[in-house]
Amino acid sequence: MSDKDKTNQQWGGRFSEPVDEFVARFTASIDFDKRLYHHDIMGSKAHAKMLNKAGILTTEELDSILNGLAEIEQEIERGEFEWSIALEDIHMNIEARLTDKIGIAGKKLHTGRSRNDQVATDIRLWLRDEIDLILSELNRLQSGLEELADKECKTIMPGFTHLQVAQPITFGHHLRAWREMLVRDSGRMEDCRKRMNQSPLGSAALAGTTFPIDREFTARELGFDAPTANSLDAVSDRDFAIEFCSASALILTHLSRMSEELVLWTSQQFDFIEMPDRFCTGSSIMPQKKNPDVPELVRGKTGRVNGHLVSLLTLMKGQPLAYNKDNQEDKEPLFDTVDTVKDCLRAFADMVPHIRSKPENMRAATKKGFATATDLADYLVKKGVAFREAHEIVGKAVAYGLNSGKDLSEMSLDELKQFSDVIEDGVQDALSLEGCIAARAHIGGTGEKA
Amino acid sequence: MSDKDKTNQQWGGRFSEPVDEFVARFTASIDFDKRLYHHDIMGSKAHAKMLNKAGILTTEELDSILNGLAEIEQEIERGEFEWSIALEDIHMNIEARLTDKIGIAGKKLHTGRSRNDQVATDIRLWLRDEIDLILSELNRLQSGLEELADKECKTIMPGFTHLQVAQPITFGHHLRAWREMLVRDSGRMEDCRKRMNQSPLGSAALAGTTFPIDREFTARELGFDAPTANSLDAVSDRDFAIEFCSASALILTHLSRMSEELVLWTSQQFDFIEMPDRFCTGSSIMPQKKNPDVPELVRGKTGRVNGHLVSLLTLMKGQPLAYNKDNQEDKEPLFDTVDTVKDCLRAFADMVPHIRSKPENMRAATKKGFATATDLADYLVKKGVAFREAHEIVGKAVAYGLNSGKDLSEMSLDELKQFSDVIEDGVQDALSLEGCIAARAHIGGTGEKA
Amino acid sequence: MSDKDKTNQQWGGRFSEPVDEFVARFTASIDFDKRLYHHDIMGSKAHAKMLNKAGILTTEELDSILNGLAEIEQEIERGEFEWSIALEDIHMNIEARLTDKIGIAGKKLHTGRSRNDQVATDIRLWLRDEIDLILSELNRLQSGLEELADKECKTIMPGFTHLQVAQPITFGHHLRAWREMLVRDSGRMEDCRKRMNQSPLGSAALAGTTFPIDREFTARELGFDAPTANSLDAVSDRDFAIEFCSASALILTHLSRMSEELVLWTSQQFDFIEMPDRFCTGSSIMPQKKNPDVPELVRGKTGRVNGHLVSLLTLMKGQPLAYNKDNQEDKEPLFDTVDTVKDCLRAFADMVPHIRSKPENMRAATKKGFATATDLADYLVKKGVAFREAHEIVGKAVAYGLNSGKDLSEMSLDELKQFSDVIEDGVQDALSLEGCIAARAHIGGTGEKA
Amino acid sequence: MSDKDKTNQQWGGRFSEPVDEFVARFTASIDFDKRLYHHDIMGSKAHAKMLNKAGILTTEELDSILNGLAEIEQEIERGEFEWSIALEDIHMNIEARLTDKIGIAGKKLHTGRSRNDQVATDIRLWLRDEIDLILSELNRLQSGLEELADKECKTIMPGFTHLQVAQPITFGHHLRAWREMLVRDSGRMEDCRKRMNQSPLGSAALAGTTFPIDREFTARELGFDAPTANSLDAVSDRDFAIEFCSASALILTHLSRMSEELVLWTSQQFDFIEMPDRFCTGSSIMPQKKNPDVPELVRGKTGRVNGHLVSLLTLMKGQPLAYNKDNQEDKEPLFDTVDTVKDCLRAFADMVPHIRSKPENMRAATKKGFATATDLADYLVKKGVAFREAHEIVGKAVAYGLNSGKDLSEMSLDELKQFSDVIEDGVQDALSLEGCIAARAHIGGTGEKA
Repeated sequence: MSDKDKTNQQWGGRFSEPVDEFVARFTASIDFDKRLYHHDIMGSKAHAKMLNKAGILTTEELDSILNGLAEIEQEIERGEFEWSIALEDIHMNIEARLTDKIGIAGKKLHTGRSRNDQVATDIRLWLRDEIDLILSELNRLQSGLEELADKECKTIMPGFTHLQVAQPITFGHHLRAWREMLVRDSGRMEDCRKRMNQSPLGSAALAGTTFPIDREFTARELGFDAPTANSLDAVSDRDFAIEFCSASALILTHLSRMSEELVLWTSQQFDFIEMPDRFCTGSSIMPQKKNPDVPELVRGKTGRVNGHLVSLLTLMKGQPLAYNKDNQEDKEPLFDTVDTVKDCLRAFADMVPHIRSKPENMRAATKKGFATATDLADYLVKKGVAFREAHEIVGKAVAYGLNSGKDLSEMSLDELKQFSDVIEDGVQDALSLEGCIAARAHIGGTGEKA
Repeated sequence: MSDKDKTNQQWGGRFSEPVDEFVARFTASIDFDKRLYHHDIMGSKAHAKMLNKAGILTTEELDSILNGLAEIEQEIERGEFEWSIALEDIHMNIEARLTDKIGIAGKKLHTGRSRNDQVATDIRLWLRDEIDLILSELNRLQSGLEELADKECKTIMPGFTHLQVAQPITFGHHLRAWREMLVRDSGRMEDCRKRMNQSPLGSAALAGTTFPIDREFTARELGFDAPTANSLDAVSDRDFAIEFCSASALILTHLSRMSEELVLWTSQQFDFIEMPDRFCTGSSIMPQKKNPDVPELVRGKTGRVNGHLVSLLTLMKGQPLAYNKDNQEDKEPLFDTVDTVKDCLRAFADMVPHIRSKPENMRAATKKGFATATDLADYLVKKGVAFREAHEIVGKAVAYGLNSGKDLSEMSLDELKQFSDVIEDGVQDALSLEGCIAARAHIGGTGEKA
Repeated sequence: MSDKDKTNQQWGGRFSEPVDEFVARFTASIDFDKRLYHHDIMGSKAHAKMLNKAGILTTEELDSILNGLAEIEQEIERGEFEWSIALEDIHMNIEARLTDKIGIAGKKLHTGRSRNDQVATDIRLWLRDEIDLILSELNRLQSGLEELADKECKTIMPGFTHLQVAQPITFGHHLRAWREMLVRDSGRMEDCRKRMNQSPLGSAALAGTTFPIDREFTARELGFDAPTANSLDAVSDRDFAIEFCSASALILTHLSRMSEELVLWTSQQFDFIEMPDRFCTGSSIMPQKKNPDVPELVRGKTGRVNGHLVSLLTLMKGQPLAYNKDNQEDKEPLFDTVDTVKDCLRAFADMVPHIRSKPENMRAATKKGFATATDLADYLVKKGVAFREAHEIVGKAVAYGLNSGKDLSEMSLDELKQFSDVIEDGVQDALSLEGCIAARAHIGGTGEKA
Repeated sequence: MSDKDKTNQQWGGRFSEPVDEFVARFTASIDFDKRLYHHDIMGSKAHAKMLNKAGILTTEELDSILNGLAEIEQEIERGEFEWSIALEDIHMNIEARLTDKIGIAGKKLHTGRSRNDQVATDIRLWLRDEIDLILSELNRLQSGLEELADKECKTIMPGFTHLQVAQPITFGHHLRAWREMLVRDSGRMEDCRKRMNQSPLGSAALAGTTFPIDREFTARELGFDAPTANSLDAVSDRDFAIEFCSASALILTHLSRMSEELVLWTSQQFDFIEMPDRFCTGSSIMPQKKNPDVPELVRGKTGRVNGHLVSLLTLMKGQPLAYNKDNQEDKEPLFDTVDTVKDCLRAFADMVPHIRSKPENMRAATKKGFATATDLADYLVKKGVAFREAHEIVGKAVAYGLNSGKDLSEMSLDELKQFSDVIEDGVQDALSLEGCIAARAHIGGTGEKA
């Protein structure tokens, strides 16, 4: 059967002319929604079993449908399936092929459902599986960070605010800050998965159906927690896609922050870490270059995911209920978001365990920016000076240091005493990097025992 | 004391010139963050109590601080507080005033904390309260919809897909679809509240502090579930603001969809409902106009919230840890999102119970678009016709109806029989609006018992 | 030669291990940038001619390069070219193939340029051609609107504000409003084209090159207005992509507004126009449906383009000069924006000339909403009443009409006179639809002669 | 007269109850649109003159209106004007006050116009003035960069790609790259100004008016190039606001890139420049801090402007013609964008001339990253080696340098010769920083004569 003969066969009764060829291509979704084939077939199988249970399909018809669908899935996986633009989408392509194969029983499968609830079901089933993969990559990256943090729990580096050296911290503490972000990401993905795990199947076009369907049966069969509560809402709801993209935008935001730091740390100016050659690429013109491509690219991909989130929010704004054709545009942004998040997490989970710190460089950098000034202020407070006055005193010592080119730890006791009488012998212990770090021993502090 | 004398007093020690006047104004946040005064004082009180418990403040100093802060709160609420741009932000303004009032003890209050953890604490405390207000407005609107849906559970209206008449539903069913969206919104807000309810206080600038602080005490004191686990992350994390704005963008998306329908339904073409005059406004030039301003404005405000979400995502993209001045830009989008969501929900919760349906018009509209065509197809299927063939048959009946100007229910049995032999006397019962609706009696269907 | 052998051959000298396989795939751009092949070859030809002119390539070498490139272009167009992920991008793929074919001369082609200026050149050349296609589709749609407007210049329809009937206008006037939007779009596209038409070629990696290149020659050769003025800027600038996407977002915004109106006008409630079946599709479950898929889909695609604009803005935010790997992410959003804008314009330009108005329905709708109320007010003003008082008087007449179910034109002179004494016989002439429209004869008014 | 008495007086005739108090506040725009007072009055004056010319207002009435408006403008500027929420917006507030002052003539001013064309006119007039201010700040910043670039045209610094040292450039060349971006920004602002400079006045509500108005007169009077061509389009068009925000988003994107570099360059790791204390602020806890607040804050404000652009695009998406209440939401994003762009440009224009380079540090950094590797490759090419082979040779020399800790310029001739026989005495001249820069003497190259 040629494409032309198939045109509109599923809904053409009231039409007087075939769809314009360009319009057919423009409105078809099969190019991208064929990706849902496995979950479309999964949904059809559950629906068929329910129709049989409800007496609408005979057991023979059911068997024939189940076998037909299984064969179609294999055809698709072997690359032998012939996709047709005229049949618009994955649902029609599979149904038409089923009817080719098994005849009239195939035409009965659409009883009590519509493409509107079918696609809503497919995409939730598909996304649920993808979230599980993402959760597992998130977990792998968190573990990698945890292990590296354990190894680096004594490596001293400067903590920055405003990209200015602020206070000494450990590299391990910094890596654990990264991990905390990702732990929240996992929480958001789990909440999203839970909220979306309801079955729209049986909502039909928008109002439900006149057939005696059993929505709890199909929900159970497909691993959903329950059927959705309102048929109109079920076919027009795309909250789950938006919530997923929001959670993804935060994952990419976090990865972009890590990426920025990796790019800084591999620059000749910072030179805090080494990344293996296999995660870098070179230049076509500059023979010396070794570029941190992976973090740069991940940082750039943040834009992609933010953009997809905006696409979906724009898409749904002001849409009247229930289903509108606009909704077809939900798929590509969602698909690309899933791919992007998975790839970026994979790249990071592969790369992070192989980051090597350069402790000497980190330590030298910590000594550059008067990183222990707060500790001198705290020392003064412990000697009875009010904090704001201590701050003022140390500010003056720093100004002296800038002029004389000396770090606080390089000043003699006499030099320090000119700023405050309470400074005494032993002050330098409070200003050693190790001392500063060990002193921050409370929950969440950099001196915390891992 | 004039502003000029105060300039930089909290951090000016190492500086050789005062801040440029325009720069002072450009970088100050006091114009908008003064809104946080109540929660800033709440946080300072808890911090002071903890410093006393840790032996850093005497009980006398503590009392003096608590009294001073209480007085300052009253000064602010009475509009007597003198805000200073030179003091940059809410934290410095309050601290400077405290020192004015109680002297040296005021200067000790900043021991063991920084503005970085202070603002992170303030904003979480503030947002937590606002989320509670939003949850209560969401709840009020859901109840209003529930009650109206109960009243309208027998009012028949056309259900639309593609804004084309699709199938008959009840107005109550439609209102319940709205409610479902808002139930998910409440869930998202609750998840957000739970995830953010951790105390950053004690993270200090980024690394924690050398003083023997008790972060669990302040967390408890402020109603947080726990202290945050990593000091760097705690001062640089703005996830909660983004997650809140994402959840808000979905609320506005939902309200925009309801708004679109209200605007349609009050148009002369649909004329499905009446809204009280007090929720509408008129035209300066056209004396007959009664415009649905509230839903239009709410629909427009969707852009505002989407925009704020984009602002915050853009803001955080690629920021190295820990705190950067960029982060100051988190407040205005967040504040405006909170105000917008609260106002829009309030407007809807006030308005919805006063919507009056026009059942005659709704019913007449349902008869216009062959809304029972699916039911005729279902009728045929029950007579043994495969669904796809039934669909084709009805399509032809509709084409006939379009040409002859007759709805399906207006065709004689003979007219109908020309499309299929299995059509028999009694078919018209299946095509009555009430019959169509009652038949969709499964979970989530429009015929569901309320 | 296998992919493995080729790995990194263009920049591998300083590397100790090959790129990780997943990283190679993750960072490669060849899957999407191969689309630039024609313009990459065009740029290489111009560069080669310039190198010959500068004495860097012999004429024999030049001929061999030009022939080789021509053959490669044919291989690509015949689908015979073997793309390699290991060679990362379109530039390397073509260069490697050239060297395969012609040997050492191929290796000389990269003299005095870098992939950074090469890709900047390719994408400007490509986008320039695409803008020309878009301008031509814009033009076609404007002409279609113009012609339809001419035909419909006497068809009366209600003009809406707030989707409430406001004043009578002609359908032609409405169509011309659409056209105005598109005229501005053409202007923006032309400005963008003009601003981007400068040649980055010769900027090399970022600083220019030590070879005696002639940038004005290559600029002229490639149809650019001039070479770019600064090499750092030239390789890191992506303004043109963002400006193009901004202009595109406005095009889609305009199409989304037209789409919204087409969807409204084809609804059973408005029923103002008929669209040919070939631009619509049906429903898999509801046999009566004829859905306005094209405008719905175009309306949805607005989100897509807005999203791409956000992607690019996010991408470039905070990037230090000059080229960073992030920039590779500019291509997919730009490519998809181009495709979307072209397709949507094409769909509209094809469809618009076939829209058929339903003048009876439009006229009936105009009579529903007191559309001539402003004209009654104007009538009163012309009789000497101040505008604000006339407005008040007509407001009361409308209130009376609402209660009595009468339009202004259906009220007797006596009924009208109860609201103002100045109303006299002949008032009804001022209230006829034709009269109202003809009276608005000034520039831009609905009564304007086309 | 109290607010209550005024309620709805301008359009209340057909209404049976006053607007709900919260709704009045929620829908009023006076809190933000009062900013337009000057341009609203300017527009009213032009309109009044035209009404007089058209014989609709007597010269006495005109004089009384002009005087009344002038007085109102003074009242507003002296802070004596009483704003009323019940009067909704700036137009009604001024008109009501005018009627208070001059009686019946005030009520005639609204003849032949509507708030829809009035606000469209006001906002274009206002934005036109703001664009002129922005163009002047852009110009000031460009001049500041130009002057600094002249001073720094011999200061050598590393050019970066991927934030890795790439090739030597001059600081002057880098500053000129910044300037190029801003030159394009000026072009976009000028295009936007030109395209928007058309007068919507006289479009009235949407269809024009029945009065014999002269739109060319008011256009001329207000400095517009022409009247808009279609009344429906004129009242619903917000392209100019979106185009302005797009151009602004690019300005902020550029400033964010400069900011990122300023933050990097003032870090202890780069330490390339010094910024005066008066453009920086300190820390409440860390006495040594001097933070680059201005560039950080500007970088953060990019999010704000991107967000506003998204707001406006979302706002306009899918709006049917003509005016809808949604459009009121165009003002706040536009106002805040204008303020943000002006402030950020001002901060940069003030700050940039005071940046001081640290030439020693810049030079030392250039020597770190094998910045002259490309020059060695070019040297080889000039000796007859094909570029790709030269690249490979230098790659190996760099690998040797990394292992032995030597820069290319530190290797002996014998060491260099082991990588290629063609290397000869004199190679080191080609590798000196000054030599590398001088050699890039073509248009746009870093060696270009300023």
